[in-house]
Amino acid sequence: MTDAIRGLGEFGLIRKLTEQLKQGDTVVHGIGDDCAVLAVGEKQLLLTCDASLEDVHFKRHWGKPEDIGWKAAVSALSDIAAMGGRATAVLVTLALPEDLPVSYAEGLYRGLADAVESVGATIVGGDTTASRSGIIIDITVIGEVVGRPVLRSGAQPGDVIAVTGAIGERGAGLHALLHDVDASELIRAYLHPSPRIEAGQWFQAQPGVHAMMDVSDGLLPDARHIAQASGVGIDLFSDKLPKNDRLDAYWKSQGEGGSLQRVRSGEEYELLVVLAAAEFDMICEAFSRYTGLLISVIGECTKSHEGIQLDGSIPGATGFEHFCGRD
Amino acid sequence: MTDAIRGLGEFGLIRKLTEQLKQGDTVVHGIGDDCAVLAVGEKQLLLTCDASLEDVHFKRHWGKPEDIGWKAAVSALSDIAAMGGRATAVLVTLALPEDLPVSYAEGLYRGLADAVESVGATIVGGDTTASRSGIIIDITVIGEVVGRPVLRSGAQPGDVIAVTGAIGERGAGLHALLHDVDASELIRAYLHPSPRIEAGQWFQAQPGVHAMMDVSDGLLPDARHIAQASGVGIDLFSDKLPKNDRLDAYWKSQGEGGSLQRVRSGEEYELLVVLAAAEFDMICEAFSRYTGLLISVIGECTKSHEGIQLDGSIPGATGFEHFCGRD
Repeated sequence: MTDAIRGLGEFGLIRKLTEQLKQGDTVVHGIGDDCAVLAVGEKQLLLTCDASLEDVHFKRHWGKPEDIGWKAAVSALSDIAAMGGRATAVLVTLALPEDLPVSYAEGLYRGLADAVESVGATIVGGDTTASRSGIIIDITVIGEVVGRPVLRSGAQPGDVIAVTGAIGERGAGLHALLHDVDASELIRAYLHPSPRIEAGQWFQAQPGVHAMMDVSDGLLPDARHIAQASGVGIDLFSDKLPKNDRLDAYWKSQGEGGSLQRVRSGEEYELLVVLAAAEFDMICEAFSRYTGLLISVIGECTKSHEGIQLDGSIPGATGFEHFCGRD
Repeated sequence: MTDAIRGLGEFGLIRKLTEQLKQGDTVVHGIGDDCAVLAVGEKQLLLTCDASLEDVHFKRHWGKPEDIGWKAAVSALSDIAAMGGRATAVLVTLALPEDLPVSYAEGLYRGLADAVESVGATIVGGDTTASRSGIIIDITVIGEVVGRPVLRSGAQPGDVIAVTGAIGERGAGLHALLHDVDASELIRAYLHPSPRIEAGQWFQAQPGVHAMMDVSDGLLPDARHIAQASGVGIDLFSDKLPKNDRLDAYWKSQGEGGSLQRVRSGEEYELLVVLAAAEFDMICEAFSRYTGLLISVIGECTKSHEGIQLDGSIPGATGFEHFCGRD
């Protein structure tokens, strides 16, 4: 019997496909971070792409077409934020069913363009094709390194790890959509994440920021990416997640504690930031003052174990990954 | 009743979606050519993407997975050739059904990587996701302008228009696949087109080359793109297509003359080149000597009419376009 890619896991599959690839001279950082970094003359470019498929990443009835477009664009723009960079140009691949109403296609594109323009970037091209199987959106973002690219690999034992924003709200919004719960504010948070481009640029300017990525698969799997790339262990503490009465009330109404849901919630598009221990107080305070955003220290880096631990134990299922035999 | 995008035509839909877009300061050429051109410091980047969907662009049984991957990559690399540029970096978005054999995914990726490496470029990143609806491949290519970008808009009345290679062979190969005809060499030509990157760079270095694009929709619609972008008319002559006994024999066996099929054949990935009349002889001869490729003058630019004419008449259906109510 032939093995199927189901069960290999998204990251296992990527490793298998890409392990033989050659690297060009101008590639500063290739596969393995939020963006690739490419040298172009004196500049360093950031390159990333992100696909959103109907019935895999979204259901059409979840929101307006503008929401679907906005979120698809933010999922790619967020990778530029994660490197501390600036987004400049965007390519949009759209595969659309032939019976899609023109007004829907226009709304989708307007949502995409709004997200792109909100960070000062421009849609410069793309591809438009018929689809026999629902809406497919693939967004490529070209950005520029500002100062330095902040990688996943810079975390050191003793560093602290922090996360921006009301982490977990998008996961609750997704849960509400999937289970038909009336929770409009959380659903709005899920459908309309903010690209943290400005916050990412602020962080890259602080020498005490050692590593960064965005929370797209979930706090636990994304912290594990940092741990692996940096060769450190990471301890996370669920009681350090920022207080959130709305979230607590939501999960209580669903008969759940909520903290496990919050650390496993993907598509948050907040920033996970690793900071030098001596400076984290100063950096966090200045960050909040500058951006008006919440930042919460939720753990620390260690050399006493590998991988991640949550509240002192190795967590089971950690977050979302394609090709794991789950939906 | 709500209008569907079916019937709007691919190019009508693109116009509708993109007419409100803002253009950024660093955008040298935005939507409307084979690639976007972006200023990055002293350099000019080329950006393009191209999607290949199972059951829209290909059937899995048409070839080996390596063939499907190769062709998907060439369709995007060809846009860099059309600008006379150099391909540097590639992003690969793959959406794959969970039951796809691992060996198939590996073959697909190997074909992609072979095409990318054949032109000296490097795969630097991408996105991998589950698909509920067949294989989806979206290839983004980042290139660099060499000398100058050759646009669609430079054609002048009196210029001649030429095409490289054995134009029409891929269309016959596709016909053979769709109608289950035994024509392995033509099928091979369809599945394994060559990216004309070297040829494109050679043309950009000739000041007598005024406009260029690649043949992806078909000679007729692509010549019309040049005519529209340049504000000229173009006359094409089917008896000037290069002689091709294999093609003639194929179409004869199918009860067809073949010349109409040749001018409507898409996915050829040959170059359509507009040349100054005074220099075309010299350029064509030097091109053949330098590249070993065929080049055929097939028409001329005129101010005596708009759009395109074939053998003195306005052609009917011209080539492939999505959302035209056809497959």
